[in-house]
Amino acid sequence: MGKVKLAAIATRAPNDIDKEATKKRLETLLEELDDLQNLLYAEDRHALLVVIQGMDASGKDGLIRRVFGRLNPQGVQVASFKEPTPVELSHDFLWRIHAQAPARGRIQVFNRSHYEDILITRVHKMITDDVARERMRAINDFEWLLQEHGNTDILKFYLHTSPEERHKRLEERLTIPSKMWKYNDNDLKEAKFWPEYEKAYEDCFNHCNAVPWIIVPSDQNWYKEYVVAETLRDTLKRLKMKYPGLKK
Amino acid sequence: MGKVKLAAIATRAPNDIDKEATKKRLETLLEELDDLQNLLYAEDRHALLVVIQGMDASGKDGLIRRVFGRLNPQGVQVASFKEPTPVELSHDFLWRIHAQAPARGRIQVFNRSHYEDILITRVHKMITDDVARERMRAINDFEWLLQEHGNTDILKFYLHTSPEERHKRLEERLTIPSKMWKYNDNDLKEAKFWPEYEKAYEDCFNHCNAVPWIIVPSDQNWYKEYVVAETLRDTLKRLKMKYPGLKK
Repeated sequence: MGKVKLAAIATRAPNDIDKEATKKRLETLLEELDDLQNLLYAEDRHALLVVIQGMDASGKDGLIRRVFGRLNPQGVQVASFKEPTPVELSHDFLWRIHAQAPARGRIQVFNRSHYEDILITRVHKMITDDVARERMRAINDFEWLLQEHGNTDILKFYLHTSPEERHKRLEERLTIPSKMWKYNDNDLKEAKFWPEYEKAYEDCFNHCNAVPWIIVPSDQNWYKEYVVAETLRDTLKRLKMKYPGLKK
Repeated sequence: MGKVKLAAIATRAPNDIDKEATKKRLETLLEELDDLQNLLYAEDRHALLVVIQGMDASGKDGLIRRVFGRLNPQGVQVASFKEPTPVELSHDFLWRIHAQAPARGRIQVFNRSHYEDILITRVHKMITDDVARERMRAINDFEWLLQEHGNTDILKFYLHTSPEERHKRLEERLTIPSKMWKYNDNDLKEAKFWPEYEKAYEDCFNHCNAVPWIIVPSDQNWYKEYVVAETLRDTLKRLKMKYPGLKK
């Protein structure tokens, strides 16, 4: 892909996409995914890593609940990467990430990921641009390792939302009782940095694209879920998996 | 409960239970569970440990796929305890188990568990009865620790099946291509020990019952799934959870 400019990319579904029809297709996709995951697990040859990135309130948790919440938890794990602990900080930045790489036959979801180490850290000037470049190189090497030596397919989703939609969602966390637990004082402080985050993301997309990014229009949850489920289905189908016969 | 005799306990649904109606109720239960799990996660006060035991081919994997596969994987993890590794064997038998205990707000499923250390090991005379008694004491202490100090509710399910049903299922693994990957040469060898397993299980039920066992008639998957889902729902409801308000 050429230079990515997020401002030029839609955050909503194309106009000719019908919501109700899409929701129905999502249901079918989720059933297909259940079978494909079972096959992935049974065949025990491939691993799948799903990286989910997006700004605060871009709908990462909801996506995990609605799409990955329909798969067999015996074969799916979610790692949520929050602020590193002191032990994690005493290692290189990929140490805690590598430990969560998917085993053969498994799907691993990263709710945030190693990309935070060139996002939040850059926005808040915790690292220089030179360090960021070095980290990008390490990330590209790491993803190659997982692919080539771990037989891992990697999908990287960016949940693309408009600032208006994110503001609306943060607002809801302040006013809807069942959403208040998600509110964090920091959210509003970080919102001031959204333009810087956008720039840091664009830099990621432009320099860490050996595994391509999938930019998902995510202002509408139904469309976001559909795009991710369809991408997953297509990726798993391409593996041409078969149920193994009896073990020797 | 009094002395448990498995042979006296039904492996099938009571006759007056209607299959189609039960399946519909299961769907409703699964939707309720999705909400309750979200509340468990949001409230972040209680943990839930679900122990699943049963002989080979009693349907543990299918149960996990069909019931727990409908929950948010961000809040549910499955630990499958297989033959211990050399590192695990160089520790006490609860070391690897404790490491997988659920955190607050989470549901942890054990596919097999610490109980194997007084089941397979006893059946194959790898430990004496005295050692088994000592382990039972350690298990009771351990479960108390999780409850009292970890704010953990524990559910222990035994999937109760008839030898005929298990034989039928093992047979299927030899003949149905999509099930062959589950077949293990050991399955048929172990089948000879089923009566000994039954005795070892009864001893578990009689001596490790501070947290009571739930014996689930499991010859029919639809009934097994329903009983487990309903028990989960009731257990989570009893916690009287509330969405927390805004954090101070």
